[in-house]
Amino acid sequence: MQKFITKKVREMEVEDAVEGFFLLKNPSPKTTQNGKSLLSFKLADASGEIECVFWDYEGNLHETCNGKPAKIRGTVSEYNGKKQINVQQIRAAKEGDPVDLNSLVPAAPIDPKQAYTQMIDLIDTIQDPEYKNVCLEMLSRNREMICSMPAAKAVHHAFRYGLLMHTYFMMCHADHMARYYPFVDRDLLLTGTFCHDLAKAKEYTLSPVGMVTDYSVPGYLLGHLYMGASDIGNVCREIGVSEEKSLLLQHMLLSHHGKPEFGAAVPPKTAEAMLLSMIDDLDAKMETVREALEGQPNGMTESVWALGYKLYNHD
Amino acid sequence: MQKFITKKVREMEVEDAVEGFFLLKNPSPKTTQNGKSLLSFKLADASGEIECVFWDYEGNLHETCNGKPAKIRGTVSEYNGKKQINVQQIRAAKEGDPVDLNSLVPAAPIDPKQAYTQMIDLIDTIQDPEYKNVCLEMLSRNREMICSMPAAKAVHHAFRYGLLMHTYFMMCHADHMARYYPFVDRDLLLTGTFCHDLAKAKEYTLSPVGMVTDYSVPGYLLGHLYMGASDIGNVCREIGVSEEKSLLLQHMLLSHHGKPEFGAAVPPKTAEAMLLSMIDDLDAKMETVREALEGQPNGMTESVWALGYKLYNHD
Amino acid sequence: MQKFITKKVREMEVEDAVEGFFLLKNPSPKTTQNGKSLLSFKLADASGEIECVFWDYEGNLHETCNGKPAKIRGTVSEYNGKKQINVQQIRAAKEGDPVDLNSLVPAAPIDPKQAYTQMIDLIDTIQDPEYKNVCLEMLSRNREMICSMPAAKAVHHAFRYGLLMHTYFMMCHADHMARYYPFVDRDLLLTGTFCHDLAKAKEYTLSPVGMVTDYSVPGYLLGHLYMGASDIGNVCREIGVSEEKSLLLQHMLLSHHGKPEFGAAVPPKTAEAMLLSMIDDLDAKMETVREALEGQPNGMTESVWALGYKLYNHD
Amino acid sequence: MQKFITKKVREMEVEDAVEGFFLLKNPSPKTTQNGKSLLSFKLADASGEIECVFWDYEGNLHETCNGKPAKIRGTVSEYNGKKQINVQQIRAAKEGDPVDLNSLVPAAPIDPKQAYTQMIDLIDTIQDPEYKNVCLEMLSRNREMICSMPAAKAVHHAFRYGLLMHTYFMMCHADHMARYYPFVDRDLLLTGTFCHDLAKAKEYTLSPVGMVTDYSVPGYLLGHLYMGASDIGNVCREIGVSEEKSLLLQHMLLSHHGKPEFGAAVPPKTAEAMLLSMIDDLDAKMETVREALEGQPNGMTESVWALGYKLYNHD
Amino acid sequence: MQKFITKKVREMEVEDAVEGFFLLKNPSPKTTQNGKSLLSFKLADASGEIECVFWDYEGNLHETCNGKPAKIRGTVSEYNGKKQINVQQIRAAKEGDPVDLNSLVPAAPIDPKQAYTQMIDLIDTIQDPEYKNVCLEMLSRNREMICSMPAAKAVHHAFRYGLLMHTYFMMCHADHMARYYPFVDRDLLLTGTFCHDLAKAKEYTLSPVGMVTDYSVPGYLLGHLYMGASDIGNVCREIGVSEEKSLLLQHMLLSHHGKPEFGAAVPPKTAEAMLLSMIDDLDAKMETVREALEGQPNGMTESVWALGYKLYNHD
Amino acid sequence: MQKFITKKVREMEVEDAVEGFFLLKNPSPKTTQNGKSLLSFKLADASGEIECVFWDYEGNLHETCNGKPAKIRGTVSEYNGKKQINVQQIRAAKEGDPVDLNSLVPAAPIDPKQAYTQMIDLIDTIQDPEYKNVCLEMLSRNREMICSMPAAKAVHHAFRYGLLMHTYFMMCHADHMARYYPFVDRDLLLTGTFCHDLAKAKEYTLSPVGMVTDYSVPGYLLGHLYMGASDIGNVCREIGVSEEKSLLLQHMLLSHHGKPEFGAAVPPKTAEAMLLSMIDDLDAKMETVREALEGQPNGMTESVWALGYKLYNHD
Repeated sequence: MQKFITKKVREMEVEDAVEGFFLLKNPSPKTTQNGKSLLSFKLADASGEIECVFWDYEGNLHETCNGKPAKIRGTVSEYNGKKQINVQQIRAAKEGDPVDLNSLVPAAPIDPKQAYTQMIDLIDTIQDPEYKNVCLEMLSRNREMICSMPAAKAVHHAFRYGLLMHTYFMMCHADHMARYYPFVDRDLLLTGTFCHDLAKAKEYTLSPVGMVTDYSVPGYLLGHLYMGASDIGNVCREIGVSEEKSLLLQHMLLSHHGKPEFGAAVPPKTAEAMLLSMIDDLDAKMETVREALEGQPNGMTESVWALGYKLYNHD
Repeated sequence: MQKFITKKVREMEVEDAVEGFFLLKNPSPKTTQNGKSLLSFKLADASGEIECVFWDYEGNLHETCNGKPAKIRGTVSEYNGKKQINVQQIRAAKEGDPVDLNSLVPAAPIDPKQAYTQMIDLIDTIQDPEYKNVCLEMLSRNREMICSMPAAKAVHHAFRYGLLMHTYFMMCHADHMARYYPFVDRDLLLTGTFCHDLAKAKEYTLSPVGMVTDYSVPGYLLGHLYMGASDIGNVCREIGVSEEKSLLLQHMLLSHHGKPEFGAAVPPKTAEAMLLSMIDDLDAKMETVREALEGQPNGMTESVWALGYKLYNHD
Repeated sequence: MQKFITKKVREMEVEDAVEGFFLLKNPSPKTTQNGKSLLSFKLADASGEIECVFWDYEGNLHETCNGKPAKIRGTVSEYNGKKQINVQQIRAAKEGDPVDLNSLVPAAPIDPKQAYTQMIDLIDTIQDPEYKNVCLEMLSRNREMICSMPAAKAVHHAFRYGLLMHTYFMMCHADHMARYYPFVDRDLLLTGTFCHDLAKAKEYTLSPVGMVTDYSVPGYLLGHLYMGASDIGNVCREIGVSEEKSLLLQHMLLSHHGKPEFGAAVPPKTAEAMLLSMIDDLDAKMETVREALEGQPNGMTESVWALGYKLYNHD
Repeated sequence: MQKFITKKVREMEVEDAVEGFFLLKNPSPKTTQNGKSLLSFKLADASGEIECVFWDYEGNLHETCNGKPAKIRGTVSEYNGKKQINVQQIRAAKEGDPVDLNSLVPAAPIDPKQAYTQMIDLIDTIQDPEYKNVCLEMLSRNREMICSMPAAKAVHHAFRYGLLMHTYFMMCHADHMARYYPFVDRDLLLTGTFCHDLAKAKEYTLSPVGMVTDYSVPGYLLGHLYMGASDIGNVCREIGVSEEKSLLLQHMLLSHHGKPEFGAAVPPKTAEAMLLSMIDDLDAKMETVREALEGQPNGMTESVWALGYKLYNHD
Repeated sequence: MQKFITKKVREMEVEDAVEGFFLLKNPSPKTTQNGKSLLSFKLADASGEIECVFWDYEGNLHETCNGKPAKIRGTVSEYNGKKQINVQQIRAAKEGDPVDLNSLVPAAPIDPKQAYTQMIDLIDTIQDPEYKNVCLEMLSRNREMICSMPAAKAVHHAFRYGLLMHTYFMMCHADHMARYYPFVDRDLLLTGTFCHDLAKAKEYTLSPVGMVTDYSVPGYLLGHLYMGASDIGNVCREIGVSEEKSLLLQHMLLSHHGKPEFGAAVPPKTAEAMLLSMIDDLDAKMETVREALEGQPNGMTESVWALGYKLYNHD
Repeated sequence: MQKFITKKVREMEVEDAVEGFFLLKNPSPKTTQNGKSLLSFKLADASGEIECVFWDYEGNLHETCNGKPAKIRGTVSEYNGKKQINVQQIRAAKEGDPVDLNSLVPAAPIDPKQAYTQMIDLIDTIQDPEYKNVCLEMLSRNREMICSMPAAKAVHHAFRYGLLMHTYFMMCHADHMARYYPFVDRDLLLTGTFCHDLAKAKEYTLSPVGMVTDYSVPGYLLGHLYMGASDIGNVCREIGVSEEKSLLLQHMLLSHHGKPEFGAAVPPKTAEAMLLSMIDDLDAKMETVREALEGQPNGMTESVWALGYKLYNHD
């Protein structure tokens, strides 16, 4: 009897008999010119994706399963010079199935638990009780999302734990910078940094496994700067933070893109708002560079979309 | 006995004996080189302002009276080629004094009561009860301010009833345009137009007689687009307007400056938001033109600050 | 015997036997790999276009018939998953044929006769006899073109009666605005508005049925702003309009694109020129929005080329 | 008896007794604080200007003499640290007076007769009779102006013979360049170059001695690009030049500022139009440099307005 | 026996039996679906390129021969509607073979020997011995490259002798301009012009026959402005040129792109640097125009990449 | 006998008898209207400056003493409402005088010795011997300058130890960032950061006490980016650093202003160059903020030149 093995998509070879959990993409029933019915779809994991075909499929997988994990069994073949799986069995994943999201979608190159813990430790160093309460309240309202969602649809940090990685790195930078610029209110800076992108949870729609698929309608019409500032204003009112502190936090969120042409609703007008906008830009640019250089040979890369030119990779 | 007359500042002549209510500006006690004490200040009305001196003044008018109406009696003289009033009596205006603000500060060239009535009539034509309620609620919260405040510190509409004039004209334009572009939701357009600048009340600090003196701190850090959008979002929640309508209104307020480089937090993405941003710009530009041409002879004007060039005035 | 029916292109179904007048596009004689001769072409009407093939064609339709109406009879089939007509009869339309241009090319969503009449009525309200004469003279020189041609090659108003629709809407806006800004010379504004795009007739080359195909050489080298201003200057000289009025009209035409980067030869420097440039922009933008939203479901549209972003369509 | 000498303004010393013809600037009768009447004015020549006072003046020089030559006699003194002339005699210059304009206003550093002759010689090398006729006709209509007027109000070539110098240099450059780029139509290039700035005569108002004082109204509303293109179009029609050649010439004039943001009504789209715009810019820039460096010591200059930075002057 | 003829690629016809030297492009051994082995490659000369196939090839031409001349013999056939050569014999060119590079790669439309001679003659007119020595030293270090390499990868002068043509034309323009602007130091101008693009030899990587293939790593990271300025600084130090002259030359090279947004490291701040940047731009633009118009019919061209719009070609 | 005291300029009061060392500014001998001779000058220290007059001065202090320390003795009085010193004794400072530069010119708010030591410690952590040698060589060539000079003429860090403060803070940031972005070559980053502004020593001219007075001629014509890159290239050659490392360092210096419009000769194309440009900008902006907020009350500041708007200062 045939032995089915578990493999990453990128490592599959022709004639492999494979089984396992993958993300199901765009399942669509079709009919061939000679009348045979089939289900055509793709399977994906964090390593890549592969075309699949299920002949004489009579099950009920349809559009609503798109983007969700499914279990399959099949054989790798080649068609038109590209690999594909001839699937013999397929079913949607059920609760209790041993699905490992981290193998199915790309993830940040960090240890998410450690990053989370250290970020919480930094929040704990905030002296001002009002600012610390804002952080804790925002954390309790957004914990699940902070722990998993990407920070973007594309360009940089567009992977699982992306928002956590971005926020954690920026809080480390904020902590560092506050030592060199003592006129900066460290508590305010850490609070604004922690909260600056939390409204991204509302700005995007997410796939079943938590990848950003598009802007939500409120995200498209209002943007995460406005929504985040508005949220933090409401939280401050609800938990009794002073007007001045609420105002300073709202200003940081509204201005954190630095310039109107980059999306800032107002330019940063406090020391903390300016510093936030610069460490946000710095971390975004460096992650863009990391993604452009990763796995590349020495020499010039392809043109990097967010920069408009090629980078040079060296030892 | 000397006969004191009431005159506009611009019409005062040397040797006139004048009395009446004027705005008191920058009162400051001084001592001359030969030791005489005096109170130096300016008086202003809607027609202009004039230097004043009160010799041997021993009263208690000070900085806190700055910008408030006062009653004076004095004689017009000339000093260093400029007119000034030698004041003999001065006192701050009291409640009950027949002070006419319209003669003291410049006012819009409209009949404010008629404009207000017609604006309310336009609100009354809104069919959708939710949108109409938003207007009525915003009206009841801002009535006094809508009826009197300027729309700006300078450039255009920087006079009493300026906000009313600007809002009323724009609502007339909205009403007109809705007839030609039937895909526009007239109720939404009128509501967004009515509310678009109401947060200017918070954006500025006002003088005792209602002129804009500067940005307030929240106005400077957040801007009237964000504050207005946030206010209307809160009002919608409080009076039970649907999420979708609230979102469309917030979007209109956030985007009404048209482009990020003109201050829009997001670009206008609905038909109504685009139309609002264009009639706002049109009315602002035409009022700028009116103010630049008013009272000018035919020919080229001075360079108009908001345009960067001179206009040409013709019959 | 087979019954041939008349159908819009978009509504044709496989196996329909159709006949009627359509626009002939790109007729080209070909030979198949096994030596059969055929005529390949497209047929189009206002609803869309469809591929056609005429086997063993021996007639004389060629490139010079491109873009002209023709009468055909044939049967709808499917080839490579797309519909096509197997044509059995074809001939160019002749004078006297019952060709209805409005069914062949897309047309403005207005009643052109009514729009024309109301536009003439507005011209009739011009008090100044010189300005009115300019309108009437320009009308008599361009009547046919005003009554039918598109206002553009693409982006907006690129359909039959497009220039009429654009001009008529703008004259209504001019009429409205003149009431709110009494320092504007209404007669001058209406005259400039009526004439502002008339030189588009020279700027473009038109297809046999009046669609814009490309820039003409003078249009490409001089542009409709210069040509229109030059024409109106000549007309003023010929019919004895004063120098000042001619100058003001030429200025309006030269500046009606508002800014040099949008094609204005000079910036608008009179109240009327500024207002013209703004209502031109407003009507162009709103028509762009109408075309982008028309027939779309609620939600975000495709990115709109002239704006650079997606619109949001709502109830 | 005192000996009156003739001196340039810049060389006058305190106690000099001077006489001669100078330009009279802003004559205005005044009264001193102790009741003495006087005429206050400035006198200017090509070397500079000096304040003047005429005590107890009872003559009739007034505003209408402003900018015209006058003969004076007086003594140089010093007042408030600046030189001034105490004038004893003054009268407006009359016809027949030996007034030398070249000593009164700054002039181009060229021999104007020689430049004119060589420019005419270049026109004479044009082979195409139609283009040559355009030059000759434009020359006959503008000869006096070509021979004397400045090319600008400020920045560069703002002196007597400035237009001649600029046009002549550019025709020499056109003649040179045509040899290296044989696809350029030399006749067209020379014609367009000769005519490109002739409408400056209409664009500006001139002082009595031919200096540019301001934009004329047509100049301000239409600009010399449009007026020049329109003029050359009319001339072509009147003397029977072909449509194509007229079009190419109009295009060169409309586009000779190179880019819309520099005032071009259309971008240059022919080889000749591109070359014209570049040699125009080159000659303007080099003359700007000449004026900035002239008479300066080695080292950095003041910031040059048209460039926005300082030049470096070296041996 | 078959007669093989020599033909330009563009003139080859089906059934021609051809032989001769061509550039070999992308040779790659392949296997067909039915197992036949073949060598697939392109052959190119200055007139164009053509697909080739060599059946059952067993030789050793591989990637390292890419871009080098090779001798072939074969027959022209047609495949999928495009011409190709069925090659029967192929070998790499050897030393001593009568290979004519000028027929293999496109070349500047000049006589390179004459241009070189006249350029050297111009260098010989430099009076200042230090500047002349700089030219002679730079010439001796770069002679071979000056005599052959292109001036660019694309856009303009991207052909054999391109750098020579560009430099020679610019030196002629420099020589001409120095006569009209006598404050310009002609010796400095000629020297800077001669040297301005010499570092392009390091900025690019070249193919075996001298065409630009890409940026070199130093070229991409430093650019030819910096490298050229640095080289000339070193040369000046080595041959004992004064500090001031070295500085002026380095400044010209650093600034010759005119504006930072066009790549200038500093803006041109001397008369000579400004003139160099303008004649560089002029020659680049005119060559761009020449290439866009060459061989085109009258009328509008395709959009020209470097300009962003279409040119108009006329008689 | 009068007791002379030592005071900072800002703390001097009328009738104080003061003595001490101050900077002498613009000494100029004058004669009053009634013939008295005097020496007029200013004295300055780090706290401010004050006008001085020395009646009947017969010494030899002149322009060449400008900007140097001098010892004075005099009495503070008031003239025209401003304080001035009536000086009775003055002499230039001599070697051996107890002149404390730190009290005479403004200094960075750091402990310079400690900053220097810690910067050297960071250099010591560089692992790569070539990069470390570059740092040590550059240090030995520029030690004195690194230890004292300002980093700018104005805007930010324009005080004693400014370059040290800026470089030290940036090296701390580089050290921090290298931990979060492990694809960055920490040795290269630290080396480039240490060297990035060293050419400022050549870019500026310094006053006798080390303040920046203006650009030097090489600084104005070449800029510190080019000069620094060129210097480091030469050093690398001299001490035998590999081509690749030299290239990467030169690239970092050439690109450290980030964008061409901010003065970068090329955009940053390596991870290290991008990070350098961002921490340079961050430290410059934060120092600008510090200087704008220092000593200001809460509320809006004056408009900050480098930002173009007002900052908001809060607790």
